[in-house]
Amino acid sequence: MADDTTIQRAGDDGREEEDFALDRDLVDRIVAAADAGDAGQLKDLMAPLHAADIADLLEQVSAAERREILLLWGSEMDGDVLSELDDSIREEVIGTLPKHVLAEAVRELDSDDVVDLIEDLEKPQQAQILGALDAGDRAAVEQSLTYPEYSAGRLMQREVVTAPEHWTVGETIDHLRRDEELPDQFYHVILVDPGHHPVAYVTLGKLLSSRRDTALKDITEDSFRTISARQEEGDVAYAFNQYHLISAPVVDDDNRLVGVITIDDAMSVLDEEHEEDILRLAGVGDESSIADTVIETVRQRLPWLGVNLCTALLAASIIGLFQDSISHLVALAVLMPIVASMGGNAGTQTLTVAVRALATRNLTENNVLRVVRREAMVGVLNGLVFALLLGVVAALWFAMPELGLVIALAIIINLMVAALAGILVPVVLDKLGADPALASGTFVTTLTDMVGFFAFLGLATLVLL
Amino acid sequence: MADDTTIQRAGDDGREEEDFALDRDLVDRIVAAADAGDAGQLKDLMAPLHAADIADLLEQVSAAERREILLLWGSEMDGDVLSELDDSIREEVIGTLPKHVLAEAVRELDSDDVVDLIEDLEKPQQAQILGALDAGDRAAVEQSLTYPEYSAGRLMQREVVTAPEHWTVGETIDHLRRDEELPDQFYHVILVDPGHHPVAYVTLGKLLSSRRDTALKDITEDSFRTISARQEEGDVAYAFNQYHLISAPVVDDDNRLVGVITIDDAMSVLDEEHEEDILRLAGVGDESSIADTVIETVRQRLPWLGVNLCTALLAASIIGLFQDSISHLVALAVLMPIVASMGGNAGTQTLTVAVRALATRNLTENNVLRVVRREAMVGVLNGLVFALLLGVVAALWFAMPELGLVIALAIIINLMVAALAGILVPVVLDKLGADPALASGTFVTTLTDMVGFFAFLGLATLVLL
Repeated sequence: MADDTTIQRAGDDGREEEDFALDRDLVDRIVAAADAGDAGQLKDLMAPLHAADIADLLEQVSAAERREILLLWGSEMDGDVLSELDDSIREEVIGTLPKHVLAEAVRELDSDDVVDLIEDLEKPQQAQILGALDAGDRAAVEQSLTYPEYSAGRLMQREVVTAPEHWTVGETIDHLRRDEELPDQFYHVILVDPGHHPVAYVTLGKLLSSRRDTALKDITEDSFRTISARQEEGDVAYAFNQYHLISAPVVDDDNRLVGVITIDDAMSVLDEEHEEDILRLAGVGDESSIADTVIETVRQRLPWLGVNLCTALLAASIIGLFQDSISHLVALAVLMPIVASMGGNAGTQTLTVAVRALATRNLTENNVLRVVRREAMVGVLNGLVFALLLGVVAALWFAMPELGLVIALAIIINLMVAALAGILVPVVLDKLGADPALASGTFVTTLTDMVGFFAFLGLATLVLL
Repeated sequence: MADDTTIQRAGDDGREEEDFALDRDLVDRIVAAADAGDAGQLKDLMAPLHAADIADLLEQVSAAERREILLLWGSEMDGDVLSELDDSIREEVIGTLPKHVLAEAVRELDSDDVVDLIEDLEKPQQAQILGALDAGDRAAVEQSLTYPEYSAGRLMQREVVTAPEHWTVGETIDHLRRDEELPDQFYHVILVDPGHHPVAYVTLGKLLSSRRDTALKDITEDSFRTISARQEEGDVAYAFNQYHLISAPVVDDDNRLVGVITIDDAMSVLDEEHEEDILRLAGVGDESSIADTVIETVRQRLPWLGVNLCTALLAASIIGLFQDSISHLVALAVLMPIVASMGGNAGTQTLTVAVRALATRNLTENNVLRVVRREAMVGVLNGLVFALLLGVVAALWFAMPELGLVIALAIIINLMVAALAGILVPVVLDKLGADPALASGTFVTTLTDMVGFFAFLGLATLVLL
């Protein structure tokens, strides 16, 4: 057992071996066993794997291999594997499972995992899974589904551990020992008043280390905060990260306890939000996954490439205004992409920092003016440095000092614009309620392309021709 | 108390109000109190704030305001606020604190927080803080500092709760009740053998809900994994997220228990790694913060803009080869940035998905070939769509059907190159041990710029002139 459970493969074989990634050799053997139709060997090979690793395995093999594996091993499927699967694969997998296997699998899950599992499924599949649950569990899941998507109500588990506020440590422990249906994981006992409003909580560590006659209310935690079931899940994840929460009670509009959110759920949300940010910044649909099909991928990427085509045409039309200048001096055509590219890069740098700072609540009304001033200064300084460099290069390359002067001025203008747009565009989008990660990049680079071409070609036309 | 601790401001006033962000009005009042030199009011205003919010406050105000606040309120500073501060501000704040305040502040912290606090400080400040600790704590911190930066050894806290493997629940609870120095937060009791090797763990929930005569070894968890103190912290965060760990024992090279890592530490690392990825993808120094000074910011951004200047010059030199063609047909200068820009965007989309998939271990040797094939197909399909669109636009714009054909071919070539480069560049960089987030973007867009210009201008020269 010791070897299986020790996470320390890196030391022996250096960076070559991906730590924690599924062993290629093992994947090959599993696929081979599935190919050979050897159900027994397949089960033996997959038995020691963690649910999360089985889900990764199913995502990494081809669709045909996945079908083979599910055919032979599907009856072993448990709810945790389903929970871990990527959305794009999950529906397909659920579709292939025999009804009784699926029913068995979902019955072991906590209510929050069932909600997570079914909220993106088609109605018939949803009904099938709900039908497999006990009446009580089904009611809990259906209740959670009444909360808006991406809300705390969807994220919470209904299973809570509570105690009346007047209890002692001893009474609480006796109660826990009698309770047959404790959640798999819990970290606090929540103190509730007679109206079932949460008023405080006690960590299990304090419970264990306090004398039996200690009153619960004497060992409560300062960190206690409740979360509204309507709160957005992104805000919940932020609160967990900011205030180092481990679990937090969730309340309804009347402030009554309806569930609890634990840190592992918050960590998953944080991870998803980051993924969304990074994919949106790149203009990729935020549901993109390496397991998507070709058609899904094309469908996700076409829209932003289409937007980019429009903005590129816009920038090209600026160049079109100066065709005469270019035909007089072809050097302009050679140098103009440099001005646009430097602006685009500087703008992307600034906007990425701004988008991150907005996401982590570090860029607020309190400091936005100071940050804008700082970015403008940075733009000017960077502009001066590269104006000098590029001015000299251009003047020497085409043996035209005036050309060096023109490109130097254009660079300064464009890096200033890049700095200001890089900070103002995301701030304004955020203020308007749009996701700054989604659209900032296109706005900013379109602007720097257009300003870059216009400033350079316009100045050249004035000064050189 | 109820109002202070309820996280549900959003419902009342919609998206306008940033949830959890520091209230602007409160910040204004705090700054006003500091300006007025009213230490009493300042303390009253800041007393209810969480340490993380005080840290945010200090980061958001200007340097002058920060000095004023620290002068009047600094004696209230506690260790948690120091822990939460951004690196760039932390050094400055520590420098302003009276010695006894600093000593008091660090003494309350767990060993992992002290390590995190001092590892980036200059030697004299490090020595000052180490000097403030008790001998035992100092030894623990110094021991942690012997592990490499960004390793599990730096991340772990030394305070662990253990029990001999043969104990019962009753014996363990009695022991915990006697122990005066339990960590603030702990989630498992770790079972150790006589050689102090961890062999299993028991959740506090199980301890509380089991009868006193239950043997600990009958209620251990399957999720038990140990982490090597030399493991990279990024791998540790991945393991926590992948396997839903709450805490994990850390062992030295002889497999002896040396500490424990908890999920909140892993969550912070995950957050930092994401931040690094997103900033590196944008070519911004990964330590960038909205609180940096102008000079720091310029210093971080100049290098990548410099790299971009070189690659832009490279692309310009390709255009330089075709000056004759451009002077014959200025339309080429108008259209060529579109080909480059579409390629750059498509390449960035693919590489972002690839970088994410590498970071989450979803792109591995098991599926890289299939993913490359898929991306190539996506490139071809996107290429065909935009070739058609842009071909028609160009042919109509300049009334030259052959020009439409040339740009259509160039777009297909460039989107194919973008797709392949977008996946292969990050995979190869990762294989070579480089961070794919750091350099992929520059490689890929340089390639798509050069190929875009070369394919379009080259084909035009062959076909049209």
